Amino acid sequence: MKALRVEKNKVAVREIELPEAGQEALVRVVLSGICNTDIEITRGYAGFQGTIGHEFVGIVEDAPDGKLVGQRVVGEINAGCGECELCRAGDPRHCPTRTVLGIVGRDGAHAEFLRLPFMNLLPVPERVADEHAVFAEPLAAACGIIERTAVTKDKNVAVIGDGKLGLLCAQALALTGAPVLLIGKHPEKLRIAERRGIETATAKNASGRKREFDVVVEASGSASAFSTAVGLLRPRGVLVLKSTFHGTTKIDAATIVVDEISIVGSRCGRLAPALDLLKKGAIDVDSLISEEYPLRDGVLAMERASRKGVLKVFLRP
Amino acid sequence: MKALRVEKNKVAVREIELPEAGQEALVRVVLSGICNTDIEITRGYAGFQGTIGHEFVGIVEDAPDGKLVGQRVVGEINAGCGECELCRAGDPRHCPTRTVLGIVGRDGAHAEFLRLPFMNLLPVPERVADEHAVFAEPLAAACGIIERTAVTKDKNVAVIGDGKLGLLCAQALALTGAPVLLIGKHPEKLRIAERRGIETATAKNASGRKREFDVVVEASGSASAFSTAVGLLRPRGVLVLKSTFHGTTKIDAATIVVDEISIVGSRCGRLAPALDLLKKGAIDVDSLISEEYPLRDGVLAMERASRKGVLKVFLRP
Repeated sequence: MKALRVEKNKVAVREIELPEAGQEALVRVVLSGICNTDIEITRGYAGFQGTIGHEFVGIVEDAPDGKLVGQRVVGEINAGCGECELCRAGDPRHCPTRTVLGIVGRDGAHAEFLRLPFMNLLPVPERVADEHAVFAEPLAAACGIIERTAVTKDKNVAVIGDGKLGLLCAQALALTGAPVLLIGKHPEKLRIAERRGIETATAKNASGRKREFDVVVEASGSASAFSTAVGLLRPRGVLVLKSTFHGTTKIDAATIVVDEISIVGSRCGRLAPALDLLKKGAIDVDSLISEEYPLRDGVLAMERASRKGVLKVFLRP
Repeated sequence: MKALRVEKNKVAVREIELPEAGQEALVRVVLSGICNTDIEITRGYAGFQGTIGHEFVGIVEDAPDGKLVGQRVVGEINAGCGECELCRAGDPRHCPTRTVLGIVGRDGAHAEFLRLPFMNLLPVPERVADEHAVFAEPLAAACGIIERTAVTKDKNVAVIGDGKLGLLCAQALALTGAPVLLIGKHPEKLRIAERRGIETATAKNASGRKREFDVVVEASGSASAFSTAVGLLRPRGVLVLKSTFHGTTKIDAATIVVDEISIVGSRCGRLAPALDLLKKGAIDVDSLISEEYPLRDGVLAMERASRKGVLKVFLRP
């Protein structure tokens, strides 16, 4: 089968063997989405070698006991050991020996087929289109913020970054009733949020609102956004870090101490509530779709996805 | 009167005019303690110029309506505007226009006299010696950690740094019933904690306990301790930053995101509970006292306080 692979920091579409399901489920990928993490992996992030991609919708082809076969599914990307305390509590996201689809020790979704533990799969409601279902994973990541810090309607929230992750975060957080300000560079992207009633600003215009925000979400993937974010926070405010990128960030630790700021990392969320939001049409994902390529043009698609101004790029096997 | 002042990054004992109390209280300083923050100020921290020092015990000489005159007191170091929302809620620690004794816009405690708002003063119980009362402020800062993150007996806690702040943090946190590991370099300092039943380790020995801790407190003031601290944390653990120092720290933001770590700044605590602990003898502060100098030898005292191995240095006017 075809698969988009990173090998020795080079990305290429290759012919590889079909994965054997074993005790897991075999899923035929219908559509996959390119995430910035895929691009960061080509720059060395996570040191991953193999098939990239972790956002997908697909059809179960084979599974233990034949369950879900023929069913359209999305998948939780963290595959735990199933035996540690965390896994037994039903949350493999921090299992110390987990593999992660297309990121850690497990071939990913930009391929004709993938495998995942059966328990990771969630059936997609019929009325959710493939092009929407493929957003379940990144939308879950956006919703995951509220697992990490309280966001309620009495909190002033800012989201930095008008890329696909920032647009999902701003929309997900606005559903809490909190006033959300999305800070970005691209008028046409900011308009996507504005159409959902979300206030927007450029970084320059937002600089007049220093120390106003209870929660600031850094979703731009830019190391320099860190100090902007800290500047917007009121004392005892919370900075949520969403972007994974390869490299280090400089912080002024004294400011964190003096203003008693909290910095909170947030990675994956739960897929079920995200699927529910997609089913309700509560999130505009249509406006986030930029382009679609056949899987065989995966390298071109990656190149497009890394261009400024381009939002979600799909691959179709 | 004599005062230990930082002017143009140079520290010197100078003769200055006695402060006028005005609407505030005038306090004759009996004893003051040198904090690492005082030393950082001489390196440019906070950009402060004036009389340094914020740990003291003294006698009220003059106050509005004559209240507390003759009384022995310690003092909350943040002086708020009294009018903003935070001040009206009784907590001036984050008042945006606050001054801070010996740190921001207000002459400090290494002097014969100081002034503070009357509401900042707390009478010292008779049975608490001057040499103990002067620890009220740094002990409050140590206790302030539990205002910022939950520490309970089911949490594994590590404190990095066996200086005076680390020793106070380890003791204060151990009182919650949580198992506390103090990580430091100096066997004679670690023994102070061991005598209170606190486990200790060198950084090298602690490196075998990666990802074991729910809460790690960085109290060493060393920029390099940051990555050590992160390495000790389990996923979703909390790193508490206590040290204010001049300069920047590099962080690997991806680790914060992937392991969903929280970094929490913690500055000042409440003095009343700290005084209560001192009254009960619940904290060994005697072992933290290294040396005492007359105020006129303040420059020598500062030099001594900045030496490795030296703990609390007192100044007596």
